[in-house]
Amino acid sequence: MMPLVMDGLQYANWSETVFRQMRQGGIDAVHATVAYHGNFAEVEAAMAEWMLRCRRHRELILLASEFADLDRARRSSRTAIFPGLQNPSPIGDDLSLLEALYRLGVRFMQLTYNNQSLLGTGYMEAVDAGLTRMGREAVAEMNRLGMVIDLSHAGPDTALQAIEASAGPVAITHANPQFWHPIGRNIPDHVLKALAESGGMLGLSLYPLHLAGGSGCPLDAFCGMAAETAGRYGVEFLGIGSDLCQDRPAESLRWMRYGRWSLKSVKEEAFPRPVSWFQDNRQFPGLAAGLRQAGFSEQDAAAVLGENWHRFLRRVMVRG
Amino acid sequence: MMPLVMDGLQYANWSETVFRQMRQGGIDAVHATVAYHGNFAEVEAAMAEWMLRCRRHRELILLASEFADLDRARRSSRTAIFPGLQNPSPIGDDLSLLEALYRLGVRFMQLTYNNQSLLGTGYMEAVDAGLTRMGREAVAEMNRLGMVIDLSHAGPDTALQAIEASAGPVAITHANPQFWHPIGRNIPDHVLKALAESGGMLGLSLYPLHLAGGSGCPLDAFCGMAAETAGRYGVEFLGIGSDLCQDRPAESLRWMRYGRWSLKSVKEEAFPRPVSWFQDNRQFPGLAAGLRQAGFSEQDAAAVLGENWHRFLRRVMVRG
Repeated sequence: MMPLVMDGLQYANWSETVFRQMRQGGIDAVHATVAYHGNFAEVEAAMAEWMLRCRRHRELILLASEFADLDRARRSSRTAIFPGLQNPSPIGDDLSLLEALYRLGVRFMQLTYNNQSLLGTGYMEAVDAGLTRMGREAVAEMNRLGMVIDLSHAGPDTALQAIEASAGPVAITHANPQFWHPIGRNIPDHVLKALAESGGMLGLSLYPLHLAGGSGCPLDAFCGMAAETAGRYGVEFLGIGSDLCQDRPAESLRWMRYGRWSLKSVKEEAFPRPVSWFQDNRQFPGLAAGLRQAGFSEQDAAAVLGENWHRFLRRVMVRG
Repeated sequence: MMPLVMDGLQYANWSETVFRQMRQGGIDAVHATVAYHGNFAEVEAAMAEWMLRCRRHRELILLASEFADLDRARRSSRTAIFPGLQNPSPIGDDLSLLEALYRLGVRFMQLTYNNQSLLGTGYMEAVDAGLTRMGREAVAEMNRLGMVIDLSHAGPDTALQAIEASAGPVAITHANPQFWHPIGRNIPDHVLKALAESGGMLGLSLYPLHLAGGSGCPLDAFCGMAAETAGRYGVEFLGIGSDLCQDRPAESLRWMRYGRWSLKSVKEEAFPRPVSWFQDNRQFPGLAAGLRQAGFSEQDAAAVLGENWHRFLRRVMVRG
């Protein structure tokens, strides 16, 4: 049997083409972003779209509600879609909406995107004040629900405090170590250490801006970084979170960056050009080969490509 | 003619009785809280209620939209109601909703209530990170609209940064100096100094928890504090912001403190007993007498009771 494969985050412009490529790449599960900004009604609409997509393409994808859906999708040669938010703004100041999000099908949520949220601080703010009063209650409620706490865009203090406050492990679904590519969006060593020691997960990102060398970063450099990270903190906490933004128009980038929180007019930019060795889901098998070349054993490469996410999701999503 | 009187903040359980008492007390204008927490639709509903109240009681009150409405209300022996929010949560992460709030009739907004908001930090959080990225844009937009920036519940750094960032003067509509009653909710000297120097306003609060001696605080102690504050920072920045919560049930207190951001069950508490000399709007004239006794000249007492708010509102609300 093929090894289990999961992608810790994608934000493709979803289409039958993308879903077929997921099958061609052998992807068993994807955490799919349904919202960056906006309100609860917008998440309802986005989730309704996913329900419709999963009916229309039921031979390709399955809307995952529980951990067992991952294995269910794998057994039926489909890809399990785990919906997630990159920002808690849809719950506003109403913590009871976390359960409502869960009931709608949301299974991952970032405590912050780039900016300050009501729960914690995003990495782009001048000062990282850590978890807020509401943030501490939100962590407890996400633990209770079995919703994955995602810290990909959090400031370091917010990330550390969330790791500490959470009763179970948390994830950074899509980012790389700062020791390899020192930008604010990547993760400093002390956070990686705390994440690994707490049983959390780091999904290594293939988004060009997160890569040393950007769009020109070679596969072997990326896989060498993965090996270095595994050497420092263990292989158990490593996965892939490709941040694939396939077929997205420029306005998606504007929305990600500015939502409606800024009224400034900004120059429209296109998405950065993806690396040649990861343009769509069909190239996942190439990652496995690259990891083997970088010195990962077959077992460790399989762990990074999916088994680690699988074990982590069981711990977060399956109750007592 | 009677001196002009304005109250910088009230949150009474509004009724014909309260409006009649406003007239009996000679109040020309009140900043009335319409929301603490919640979403935009809840503000729409609260504003619709105010529109209805102002139709029903048009001989007593007037829904104020512009600065001139204050004098219009005064000339027609009515009280101008300036609606305000104690929290920016109703705009969520959508800055364009500030103009929508303004168009609905909201004329004051706090950048934060007790907790972290998307704009800045409330005084009850462990760390005050100051104005956020969205907060800086919100200040500029409120300046453009002519909406009063209220910092009553802000942390000191957030307050200082807002005073600094704002193109016009800002207000702390209801609080007292910490030098008199050193609680986190009152205002430290360096913030009072910056506020006074920037042409801002401090509305002295009559809410028992903000008073040295609480519900037992005597009128002369309060007026002595007013005199001391005027001596330190000038009389020009002083007004009254009574924080009158007349006839409010205990659940209003729970809502103020916890909204829906906390899921914890808490013991229900009643509102603190008001001071004997300020139970309702009819007792405003007694404040004037108290200020005179504490050494304020007739002119300075009139400035504190309303003229200072009047001048401040002109500066904020009247363009060019």
